[in-house]
Amino acid sequence: MRVLILGGDGYLGWPTALRFSARGHEVAVLDNFSRRRWLREHGSASLTPIRDLDQRIEAWCEVSGERIRSYVGAVEDGDFLDQVVAETSPEAVIHYGEQPSAPYSMMSRERAVETQQTNVIGTLNLLFSLRDHVPDCHLVKLGTMGEYGTPNIDIEEGFIEIEHKGRRDTLPFPKLPGSLYHCSKVHDSTNLHFACRIWGLRATDLNQGVVYGIETEETAGDERLITRFDYDEIFGTVLNRFCVQAVIGHPLTIYGSGGQTRGFLNIRDTLRCVELAVESPAEPGEFRVFNQFTEQFSVGELAELVKLAGERLGYAVEVQHCENPRVELEDHYYNAVHTKLLDLGLQPTLLGEELMESMFHAIERHKEQVIAGSIDPHTRWNPAKSPAGRA
Amino acid sequence: MRVLILGGDGYLGWPTALRFSARGHEVAVLDNFSRRRWLREHGSASLTPIRDLDQRIEAWCEVSGERIRSYVGAVEDGDFLDQVVAETSPEAVIHYGEQPSAPYSMMSRERAVETQQTNVIGTLNLLFSLRDHVPDCHLVKLGTMGEYGTPNIDIEEGFIEIEHKGRRDTLPFPKLPGSLYHCSKVHDSTNLHFACRIWGLRATDLNQGVVYGIETEETAGDERLITRFDYDEIFGTVLNRFCVQAVIGHPLTIYGSGGQTRGFLNIRDTLRCVELAVESPAEPGEFRVFNQFTEQFSVGELAELVKLAGERLGYAVEVQHCENPRVELEDHYYNAVHTKLLDLGLQPTLLGEELMESMFHAIERHKEQVIAGSIDPHTRWNPAKSPAGRA
Repeated sequence: MRVLILGGDGYLGWPTALRFSARGHEVAVLDNFSRRRWLREHGSASLTPIRDLDQRIEAWCEVSGERIRSYVGAVEDGDFLDQVVAETSPEAVIHYGEQPSAPYSMMSRERAVETQQTNVIGTLNLLFSLRDHVPDCHLVKLGTMGEYGTPNIDIEEGFIEIEHKGRRDTLPFPKLPGSLYHCSKVHDSTNLHFACRIWGLRATDLNQGVVYGIETEETAGDERLITRFDYDEIFGTVLNRFCVQAVIGHPLTIYGSGGQTRGFLNIRDTLRCVELAVESPAEPGEFRVFNQFTEQFSVGELAELVKLAGERLGYAVEVQHCENPRVELEDHYYNAVHTKLLDLGLQPTLLGEELMESMFHAIERHKEQVIAGSIDPHTRWNPAKSPAGRA
Repeated sequence: MRVLILGGDGYLGWPTALRFSARGHEVAVLDNFSRRRWLREHGSASLTPIRDLDQRIEAWCEVSGERIRSYVGAVEDGDFLDQVVAETSPEAVIHYGEQPSAPYSMMSRERAVETQQTNVIGTLNLLFSLRDHVPDCHLVKLGTMGEYGTPNIDIEEGFIEIEHKGRRDTLPFPKLPGSLYHCSKVHDSTNLHFACRIWGLRATDLNQGVVYGIETEETAGDERLITRFDYDEIFGTVLNRFCVQAVIGHPLTIYGSGGQTRGFLNIRDTLRCVELAVESPAEPGEFRVFNQFTEQFSVGELAELVKLAGERLGYAVEVQHCENPRVELEDHYYNAVHTKLLDLGLQPTLLGEELMESMFHAIERHKEQVIAGSIDPHTRWNPAKSPAGRA
């Protein structure tokens, strides 16, 4: 199958490219390296020593004999994207090509605009290119569980049947996004749904939980194939950050009480979910939403698990509560349905002792690279409430 | 009160500026004249001979003794907008500064991107400027009833109480926008709601029905103060277009069966609704949604009303069904709640004989200006389904 991966140089995009290439698909990746640039601008970098895209592709070709095509440019550049879609004529597009950080989107007006511009306009460009060149192509788009926020009812997979004043309809699940990044993902979902309804496109929106993990089947074999791993306050997700903190002897920083509950999944399961979605595409005109996570944890529970794992390995792990830089509920109901991917055959990789230990070992190999100053939270959701803020 | 009106040169923005100025408020308007440009680019123009913004402001000063300040620039230019907000320090911002046409947003990728860029990024810029300079300012933002689409349940005002699996919450009403323009308004609502929740801003989203009418109290007195009136396929709303068609002897063009039902209101009521919202502002942190229309009609009913009114005035009015260029339901349930503005004191101007006749007379005065070729629909929601389209 011809597969085009947008954001194919990223944390998830690169291992996804390898996985599809390893299984005999014809893979092209598109990236403009903005993730690398953003990290540099914030004085941080991937913990793992990632190679340039060209070098990675070369190494993969050596290892596997498979060639991945690459295109360098931005999804916001509609003419460029259109040309790539026309040229590659994909049967599936996997779209990771977005600014993925909530704190980044809350740093300033400029960063917020950049986030919504990259994500919303990029995806809108893509929808037109699919309509005009490959209307039967299946779009697999990465969304986020954070689109839903923390409503006081069970979270369904994209849609909910509502009975109201004696009538009934199945409608998009209401959204309460928690950052301007999460808002951009809600906007994307609205545009995607529209394009499926009006143009008959087919799309799967993967509302992903928080991803953790450092290795996948294909990246583990050769250091040149390793994927990026971020642990800083802007791009590091919570479990990855906690593990790095434990290894370098930094207290685990819990934002607020730690009662915030979210869905989580291992990076290997991300790849498997995307693969399952591609193997069983949405119907023409169908906008399908899968909640893509395997387990729910509160932040406090995660810290406890990391502490135990660290102590088993001989680390003295401290847990520290700091003032929550975000505006979010810390004590809330949370129960999200996530059966659709299980129904397609997902076998979850659960967060067990062995997995946690292998993450610790992978981090230990690179611990000299950690820039400790990039870990503590500085980006506040509401600067007016900050002691250092305006108000 | 210091009032800043974005899009203050437009169909609704200009009469709103006059109304607030006439009532003693300190009014500033901001516009970049893109509406004038868009019409020119499409070979159309306002039926009414509108003056340049400077001349209008001069004329108003002569008539009323009141001075309206003006700023020329785009809301998408964040630095410019920020400077205007800082300088005018508004107590209320009335935001009409968006690309307001559904067909325009469906013409091409470029137009779709321009629409979402202007609307979403412009509003996002505004939210930051309010947060940073005037966090207590009340934002009155024009939304649209078209955000809701035509669900099979009653449409509530912005939020709906949902009972689900034994739990209960009041959540944003699910949206089914019918064009990429309508999508942009949904995105705006999501961003606005977020800014109220996280930053404590106060906003009223006026989900407006289809506006008709040509004169308001302040524009009727002096020809130099007249507002624009569009009747073309891109910017003309349905009732305005039907009235022009009747006057020039063009058949009334109903798209499809004409069973599409929407909410409507007179331009005078738009002004009154905005005034009511400004007089009773939202609370800090509150995101309030009013459904702003006074009557529901199907397109077929409207055509019948225009035909009758025309015939009373001696016109022979034909009604013609053409292939629907849009993708929309033509036979659907529609019942939208709209009590909040009535509760604040709105006295609706209903679509009676007298009102219709006065619209006919106003149009007759300018009928030599009509560019008949701009009326018939050419913009198709799904080009693949068009006989002239790709597929």
